[in-house]
Amino acid sequence: MKAAVYRGAGNVQVEEVPDPAIVEPTDAVVRVVRSCICGSDLWAYRGVIQRAVPARLGHEFLGVVEFVGPDVRTVAAGDLVVAPFQWSDNTCPACRDGIQTSCVNGGTFGAPGTDGGQGEAVRVPWADGTLVAVPGGIAGATDGLLRSLLATTDVAATGLHGARLAEVGPGSTVVVIGDGAVGLCAVLGARSILGAERIILCSRNPHRRELGRRFGATEVISERGDAAVAAVRDLTGGLGSRHVVEAVGTPEAWEMALGMAREGGTIGAVGVPHTTPQLALFPLLVHHLRVHMGVAPVRHYLPDLIDRVMAGTYDAGAVFDLELPLDQVAEGYRAMSERRAIKVMLT
Amino acid sequence: MKAAVYRGAGNVQVEEVPDPAIVEPTDAVVRVVRSCICGSDLWAYRGVIQRAVPARLGHEFLGVVEFVGPDVRTVAAGDLVVAPFQWSDNTCPACRDGIQTSCVNGGTFGAPGTDGGQGEAVRVPWADGTLVAVPGGIAGATDGLLRSLLATTDVAATGLHGARLAEVGPGSTVVVIGDGAVGLCAVLGARSILGAERIILCSRNPHRRELGRRFGATEVISERGDAAVAAVRDLTGGLGSRHVVEAVGTPEAWEMALGMAREGGTIGAVGVPHTTPQLALFPLLVHHLRVHMGVAPVRHYLPDLIDRVMAGTYDAGAVFDLELPLDQVAEGYRAMSERRAIKVMLT
Repeated sequence: MKAAVYRGAGNVQVEEVPDPAIVEPTDAVVRVVRSCICGSDLWAYRGVIQRAVPARLGHEFLGVVEFVGPDVRTVAAGDLVVAPFQWSDNTCPACRDGIQTSCVNGGTFGAPGTDGGQGEAVRVPWADGTLVAVPGGIAGATDGLLRSLLATTDVAATGLHGARLAEVGPGSTVVVIGDGAVGLCAVLGARSILGAERIILCSRNPHRRELGRRFGATEVISERGDAAVAAVRDLTGGLGSRHVVEAVGTPEAWEMALGMAREGGTIGAVGVPHTTPQLALFPLLVHHLRVHMGVAPVRHYLPDLIDRVMAGTYDAGAVFDLELPLDQVAEGYRAMSERRAIKVMLT
Repeated sequence: MKAAVYRGAGNVQVEEVPDPAIVEPTDAVVRVVRSCICGSDLWAYRGVIQRAVPARLGHEFLGVVEFVGPDVRTVAAGDLVVAPFQWSDNTCPACRDGIQTSCVNGGTFGAPGTDGGQGEAVRVPWADGTLVAVPGGIAGATDGLLRSLLATTDVAATGLHGARLAEVGPGSTVVVIGDGAVGLCAVLGARSILGAERIILCSRNPHRRELGRRFGATEVISERGDAAVAAVRDLTGGLGSRHVVEAVGTPEAWEMALGMAREGGTIGAVGVPHTTPQLALFPLLVHHLRVHMGVAPVRHYLPDLIDRVMAGTYDAGAVFDLELPLDQVAEGYRAMSERRAIKVMLT
């Protein structure tokens, strides 16, 4: 089969790789219908972090089950299924706590020895604990539905998780730092699931600002750094916001988050801190801040998000603004890296 | 009057200083009945942090009101009052949120231009928002009562705050790192106020271990570092603890806290991070940790803690294991610095 392969910074190719097969009795093999490129894929692409070469790429996909191992019970050949970006057994103590991304048997698609989502098919370990079947299957799935389902594999759930980590609830005021797909989905989750009242999005890109407003941002500020902190303070009577979602992971974003948070406020951080390995503790102590981080347990959110997508009330698929066939995956990476696209869908 | 004065690392003297007087109409002047030495006073004493020279010392005291300014309503001359280690107006947005240590008009006793608690009298700004009167006054106060009331000015409330920050509740398992007065009071608060079921205290000092058990520790481990992490993992079925109180502030203590916390667990940190200025973010992300810090808002806890002390159900005064007259304050610093005493009370 064909799959995207990482060959070093700036170098992604489509290559012929072995077809996946059932290895463990709990496996499934899924024929990919849609996959996409993640902001986190860009870290290695841009050379910010090292990655083994060659490596399989992609951890967001949905598809149709081709084969299942003899121990698989909840999905069957022919099912349209959504995969979270990590697999999980969904039975261990962490999974039972709703943090399937800490599963003792878990792992990430694209890790060494596994298939990536950016390919024609994927072996899925722990299929019962990982995959969620979509009612109605592929036959009834429109393009719009597939887009929004695809978003649930990572960004829709990660954005929602950021807002939850920030303890957003009914009537909350929240600032979202980051106008990538995750930040935009934090806006959507804060508004349509958690009931936030005021959502202040930091963005200066016209297209992203517009999508942020469509997803529920009540104010969009274009300032950066200290000026952004001042703008948020102005909008909140000088006090800052009780809830801040950090969806970037850079030192600049963390500084903004610390400056924008009200005394006693909560920062929900889902940006991967590759360039912010450490956080100053004194501001947390002095300002009584609560810092909540975590790799989004997509599997925990999937059943509810799929229901919302099926009901037509969760249009997270709007984050995909460029659609390419798998053969053109390299152009997809370029477009996202150059911020010409928010998020690229591969067909 | 006489007061303790910091003259440089290792050098504390009792000197003649000006008598305090009412400056603002919201002030009170309090004649000190009991004060004490704080673990945080030791940072400068040991030369770990710089402090202006000369500086007034001490931020924990209780006493009898001598004078009040014309705007003071809730305390009067002759009242026995407890002072939190910071003053606050108790009306600003932070105070209304219960974080009086972020009060816009707040400050710490002993800061430049203010009196310290280790002296014969103290000018207390914002007396109404700061002081809490003790029912029955000085006439009915036994030595034991004064000890436990004195503990509420900082350590009893700070320990309780650490346990609250760690989200300890009924039935919780919690690890307490730190066997100083704050750590021991975290044990007491977790047990007798928050209802924790298992409290694992890290201590190898026989006297502190015994007091920890008396305060409610169900297990006491003497290991340190990685061995302590392994011991806690052993005691918790390999999973770690959902709740960890960090009451030291050193890199070693933070490493233990991160290692002992269960996936998704909460670290409540009240140790002042002078030697741990930064915290690694990746472990928080990967292990879904919640980090809650804050300078304990003693004023928030005082009314309840005073009630408990008066009812005889909160014997935090047991942390004082050395009693000295103010004239011998230098010996008190030596004893605490050399860990010969948990906490020194000055009379």
